[in-house]
Amino acid sequence: MRAGTTLGVGVHGSQRDAERVGAAMHDTDRISAWFAGPKGENAEWFAGWVRRIADDYYAWRRNYYPEDGVVVDSTLRRENEPFADAFEDRLSELLARLKADVPFQSPRYAAHMLAEQTLPSIAGYFAAMLYNPNNVTADVAPVTLRLEIESGRMLCRMIGFAESSWAHLCSGGTLANLESLWVARSVRYLPLVVRDMRRALGLAAPAWGADDRRALGLSPAMALGAFEAVYAEARGGLRVGTPEDADVLRRMRDAYVGSAYNVAERGVAEVVGRLGSAPVLVAPETHHYCFEKALDVLGVGKRGLELVRVDRDFRMRVDHLEQVLDRVEREGRHVLAVVAVMGSTEEGSIDPLDKVVALRAERERRGAPSFWIHADGAYGGYLRSVTIPKRLGLGEPHATARVAGVERTIALSLPEHGECDALEAMKDADSVTIDPHKLGYIPYPAGAVCFRSDLVKPLVRQVAPYIEDGSIDPEHDRRSESVGVYVLEGSKPGAAAAAVWLSHSLIPLDTSGHGMLMRENIRNACELHALLEGYPAWSGRGGVRCVCLCPPGSNIVCYAFRAEGDQPLEDVNRLNRAIYERFSLGPTTRVHDRARFVSRTSLSVRQYALETVGEFLDRLGVRHEDYARSGVFLLRSVLMNPWYALGKRRGRAYLSELVEELYGAAHEVLAEARDGR
Amino acid sequence: MRAGTTLGVGVHGSQRDAERVGAAMHDTDRISAWFAGPKGENAEWFAGWVRRIADDYYAWRRNYYPEDGVVVDSTLRRENEPFADAFEDRLSELLARLKADVPFQSPRYAAHMLAEQTLPSIAGYFAAMLYNPNNVTADVAPVTLRLEIESGRMLCRMIGFAESSWAHLCSGGTLANLESLWVARSVRYLPLVVRDMRRALGLAAPAWGADDRRALGLSPAMALGAFEAVYAEARGGLRVGTPEDADVLRRMRDAYVGSAYNVAERGVAEVVGRLGSAPVLVAPETHHYCFEKALDVLGVGKRGLELVRVDRDFRMRVDHLEQVLDRVEREGRHVLAVVAVMGSTEEGSIDPLDKVVALRAERERRGAPSFWIHADGAYGGYLRSVTIPKRLGLGEPHATARVAGVERTIALSLPEHGECDALEAMKDADSVTIDPHKLGYIPYPAGAVCFRSDLVKPLVRQVAPYIEDGSIDPEHDRRSESVGVYVLEGSKPGAAAAAVWLSHSLIPLDTSGHGMLMRENIRNACELHALLEGYPAWSGRGGVRCVCLCPPGSNIVCYAFRAEGDQPLEDVNRLNRAIYERFSLGPTTRVHDRARFVSRTSLSVRQYALETVGEFLDRLGVRHEDYARSGVFLLRSVLMNPWYALGKRRGRAYLSELVEELYGAAHEVLAEARDGR
Repeated sequence: MRAGTTLGVGVHGSQRDAERVGAAMHDTDRISAWFAGPKGENAEWFAGWVRRIADDYYAWRRNYYPEDGVVVDSTLRRENEPFADAFEDRLSELLARLKADVPFQSPRYAAHMLAEQTLPSIAGYFAAMLYNPNNVTADVAPVTLRLEIESGRMLCRMIGFAESSWAHLCSGGTLANLESLWVARSVRYLPLVVRDMRRALGLAAPAWGADDRRALGLSPAMALGAFEAVYAEARGGLRVGTPEDADVLRRMRDAYVGSAYNVAERGVAEVVGRLGSAPVLVAPETHHYCFEKALDVLGVGKRGLELVRVDRDFRMRVDHLEQVLDRVEREGRHVLAVVAVMGSTEEGSIDPLDKVVALRAERERRGAPSFWIHADGAYGGYLRSVTIPKRLGLGEPHATARVAGVERTIALSLPEHGECDALEAMKDADSVTIDPHKLGYIPYPAGAVCFRSDLVKPLVRQVAPYIEDGSIDPEHDRRSESVGVYVLEGSKPGAAAAAVWLSHSLIPLDTSGHGMLMRENIRNACELHALLEGYPAWSGRGGVRCVCLCPPGSNIVCYAFRAEGDQPLEDVNRLNRAIYERFSLGPTTRVHDRARFVSRTSLSVRQYALETVGEFLDRLGVRHEDYARSGVFLLRSVLMNPWYALGKRRGRAYLSELVEELYGAAHEVLAEARDGR
Repeated sequence: MRAGTTLGVGVHGSQRDAERVGAAMHDTDRISAWFAGPKGENAEWFAGWVRRIADDYYAWRRNYYPEDGVVVDSTLRRENEPFADAFEDRLSELLARLKADVPFQSPRYAAHMLAEQTLPSIAGYFAAMLYNPNNVTADVAPVTLRLEIESGRMLCRMIGFAESSWAHLCSGGTLANLESLWVARSVRYLPLVVRDMRRALGLAAPAWGADDRRALGLSPAMALGAFEAVYAEARGGLRVGTPEDADVLRRMRDAYVGSAYNVAERGVAEVVGRLGSAPVLVAPETHHYCFEKALDVLGVGKRGLELVRVDRDFRMRVDHLEQVLDRVEREGRHVLAVVAVMGSTEEGSIDPLDKVVALRAERERRGAPSFWIHADGAYGGYLRSVTIPKRLGLGEPHATARVAGVERTIALSLPEHGECDALEAMKDADSVTIDPHKLGYIPYPAGAVCFRSDLVKPLVRQVAPYIEDGSIDPEHDRRSESVGVYVLEGSKPGAAAAAVWLSHSLIPLDTSGHGMLMRENIRNACELHALLEGYPAWSGRGGVRCVCLCPPGSNIVCYAFRAEGDQPLEDVNRLNRAIYERFSLGPTTRVHDRARFVSRTSLSVRQYALETVGEFLDRLGVRHEDYARSGVFLLRSVLMNPWYALGKRRGRAYLSELVEELYGAAHEVLAEARDGR
C-alpha cells in the first residue's frame, strides 16, 4: 500500500479563487475559526495568545503587594542555571517523546472519539491552570467555581432542564454514571426514609406508605417531593435561623440518619435484607462497560444488570424493556434505574428515550412501579444542540463524493427524526451524563452530570470539617453555590470549568454554533457509511465488500470487510484484524508509518445476543454458530474531525481516500492470504 | 488593622550583597529555581518556554503529511475575524475574572494546602495538553500512558514498594481512597472465592478453607497468593496460548465469576447475607470525610465505620485500635480495612503506621484475623522523601525569628522520629493514596493510588469492547502495560502524567530534591507554632493568647485565640470567626482587601470524642460541657509556600508578620467587643 502518494498536494488554487469572489460564508467556514487547523493554520495567532495569557498571569503576581519585593533575584537566577539547563534537556526529551502521539487533528484520523479541541477551551484551561484553583470549595476557587456553575447551567439549558436542575463537572463519564446511580439508589429508598421521618416527627403517615412495594415504586419526582414536603410540614411557619427552626432541623436530621432504610447509613445489605427485594439496573445491550463497574462499586453486584435487547440499529427495544420490567416485578425485585444510551460509544446509536419516558408515564398511570431514568449522553449528549432553538434538519439526503476519481451523487442514510425526539426527551430524564471532553471538543478532564431536580443535593451532601452544622436543609442546599459537598469527587481542576465556560460562551450550544458542527459530523458519518457500502459497485473493484453494522445513528460507523461467498467467521475476523493493523499504531510503529487511522471494537456474545446481531452476521456471510465462539472483530470510525467538508471544497476528499485505501488494504490482505504469505 | 503598611519594602541590599561573595548555595536557593516565584521572578524565562512549547506542537502538525496542505487559508482567516474579536473579548473577560482568584503563590498565603506549582509540572501539563491524549488506553495515549506508568513507579520507589507493586494516577485522593477500599473489599472475600474455584476445578481444599471466619481472616498477601496459586496449579505445565491453556483459563474464569462469594458479581447484600457477618472500616478520628462517602458509595454504609481514638497529637492510638479490632471480632463482624492517615488534612498528623503494621503481624502470629492496611497519604505521602536515601533529619531544634522587631532564637517542637518510622512503614501497607496535586506541587488533577501487589489487577479488570477475550490471567494482567481496564475511572488526561513525570524527573523524590522542600515546610510550621504560642511573652503584648491544637506532626498548624481567663466556648468561637473573616475572602471581598490568608477548620463532637480534645479545651480555657453543643472553630495554616526561608534572608519575616497581624486582629476584635461595637 503506498498510502497518500497518489493523492497530490492539497489546495486547488483556481477553485479557491472562484470562491473568494463574493461567495457567502459556509457553515464550515465559520467552524474553521474554532480550531487550530490540521496544519496549525490558526496557530500563530493562538500561540501569541498563549504567551499573552502567561504574561498576564505573572503580571497579576507582580501586582499583588508589589512592595513585598522579589525573593529570587538575578544573581540567584544565574546560580540556578544548572536547573534551567536540566529543565531544557528534560523538557526537550518530553517534547520529543510526545511527537510519537496520535495525530487526532488530521482528517486522516477517523478512529476514536477524538479530534482537535476548540481554541477557547485550550486558552481557558491554560489561563485558569496557572492560577490552579481547586473547585472543591469557593475558598480555593472563588472564580472557577462560579464558572463551573455557569457551565452546568449551559448544559442544563441545552438539555432542556428547568432552572431547578443541578449540574456540575467531574472527571468523566464513568464517574458521572457512577454518581448518577449513587444518587438514584438513595432516591429509590427515599420514600421509606420519609415514612420513617414522618413517624419519628409525629406527622401523618403518607397514603403510599402502607406497603413497602408501593413506596419503592414511587416516581423519583414524587419521592423527592415527599422529602421536601416533610421539611415544609415540620418547619411550618418557623422563621429560618431561629432556635426553634434549628431544633426542628436537628430532629429531622436525626430522623433521616436514623431511618432503617437510609442506604447511605445502613448499607445495601441491611436495606435490601429488610426489604427482601433485590435491586436491578436495566440497561440496553449497548451500555458502556462502566455500568458493570458501577454495579460492582456500588455493592449491587454485576448480576444486578438486566439487559434490554437493541434493534437492528442498536437502539434499545422498548417492547423488550417492558418485558424486562414486568419480569423484574414478577420476581419481586426492584429497579434502581433504567439507562438510555444517548450515543453508544461503539455504534453511536441513540436509544428512543422519548418512548422510555412515555412507557414510564403509562406504567405510573396504571399503578405499576415507576423508575429513575438515567440518560447516558457521555458521548452523544451534545448532539442535542442540533435541535436548538429548532431542529436544524440534517440537510439533503444525498451528497457529492469522489469515488475512483469520479464525482458522484450518493444517497445518505440520515438518522430518522426519532433521534431528535429521543434527544429532546433528555429533559425528562432524572439524570444525564454528558462529557464535554468528547463531543464538546474540550480537553480532558471534563465530564459532567446533570440532575433534573436540585432536591438530590441534600441526599448526597457530605459534612466537611469546615462545616460546623451537620443538619440537612433542602431549602438551603438547593440555593447553595457550593459544589464539593454535593459530589462524588473531592479536589478537581477549576481549569476544566474555565475551559468549558469559555468554549461554550464563544460557540453557543445551538444551531448557530455547536449544532452546525454536530450536523457536519453526522453527515460525514453517513457519507462514510454510503461510500463503504457502495464502493465496489461504483468503482468496479469487486471481490471484496464492506458491510456496515448499521446506518449511523449519529456519527460513528462500524464495519467489517468480507470476501465474496460465505466464510468462517474466524477468517473474516483475521482479514479485518490485518486491515486494522495497517490503520493503527502497534507498540513499535512510528506515527509517520501510518497514512490513516481507524479504530476497532467487537461484538461478543457476552454483550449482544445472537438475536441482535443475527441479521448483521447474515450480511457478513458467516454462520450464526461461529458467533458464540469468537465474537466479531469490527473496524470503527468516529467522525469528529471538523475538516472534511472544507477539505473537500479544497479538493481533498479525505473520506473517499480512506475508503479507497481500506478497500486497497483488504484486497492486498486477501491476495497475500491466497499467495500463502 | 493596617496590614503590611509598616513592613517596608523587600530586599535588603547590603545583606544580599554580602551573600553574593563566595557564599555556598543554601537548599532554599536551589528550591527557588523550581517555581515561578511570588513575583514571577522566573516567569520571563518560563513564559518563553510556553510559547516555544506551543510552536513546537504546531510544527508537529505541519510535519504530519505536509503535502496534505492547509484547509484554513489566509482569506478564510480574515473572514473569521469576527470570531477572533469575540475570542479576544471573552478571553479578556475570563482573564479579568480570574484576577479575583486567591494568591496561593504569595508567602502571605498560609491557608489551604496550595502554593505554587513546579515549573516543570506546568510545562509538562501544557505540552501534553496540546496533544490531548486520553490515558484510558494506549490507542489514544501511546506516550503519556508510558509516562503514567513511569510516574507510578517513581511513587512506588519513594514509598519503598518492590517492583511487583502497581500504581496509577487518578483524579484525586477521594477517588484513590474509594478505589483502594473497592479493591480491599474484593481481596477480603477472595479466599472464599478461591475455595469455590478450587472446588469447581477439582483441586484440593485449602487448609484455611475449613471455616468461613478463618478464610475471611487471611492476610491480604496470603489471599492474593492463594489466588495466584490456584492458577499455577490448574495450568500446571501447559504452554501459554495453547488451546488447552485457554480452556483452563475459561474454566477458571467461569469458576471465579460463578463463586457465591464473588462480591463484584453478587453484590454486598448477597455475600454479607451468606456470611452472616457485617463488614467494618476502621479509621482514626482524623480520617478525611471521603471515607464516609466511600462507605456510602460502596454499599457498606456509613455505620460500618469504626472510629479509633487519636492521641493529643492527633495520631491514631494503637492501643485503642487493638480494642476496636477485638470488639469487632467479638461481635462477629469483619474488617474490610484499617486506615492509617499519613498527614491528616486538618492537623497534618501522621499515624504510627509502623505500629499498626507490627500489630497486624502480632495478631496474625497468634491466629487473630488479619486485615488490609490502607495508608491515606493523600496529603502527607510526599513527606516520605525526607528520609530518602537516608533520613535527612529536620535540622537544629531551634530557629531565629524576628518578634516585635527583635531577633530571637526560638525553640521548635520538631516532629519526633516516630513520624519517620511511620512514613517508612508505608512500604508495608497494602494500598497507599498519594496526591501529586497536594504536596507534590503539581497542578490539578493529579491523584495517585499505589498497591503493594500487582496481583490486585486481575480482580478489578474490566472487559472493554476492544478486548475480545474475557478470561482472567493473573500472569498476563501483572505484566500488562494497560491502565484503563484496571482502574475506577475511564477517560483521564495524559497531560497529568506528563506533569508528574517531568516534575519528578527534574526534582527527585529524595533529599537531593523534593525532600529539601518537605523539610523546609515542616520547619516553617514548627516556627509558626512556636511564634503563635510564644508571642505575648516575647512581645510584652498580653491580654490575648493563641493556643495551638498540637505541635505540628508535619506542616499544618491549627490554632485558636483566647482572651485572659475562662470563657464560654461560644465567645471563643466568635473571636476566632471574626479573626478568620479578616484573613479570608468573603463573597464580596476583593483579593486586594486582604493582606494575609489563613484557613479554618472545626472540631466537632461528630468526629472527635471529648476524651480526644479535652486537654486542648482546658488550654483554651473553656468548659468541656460547651463542646458538644457548638464544637470548636479553629484557624489553620498549611505551610507549603517555598519562600519563607529565602524571604527571611531577604529581610522579610513573613511568618512573624503573620503572627503579629493575627494578634493585632485578635486585640482589635476583643477591643471592639468590649466597646460594644
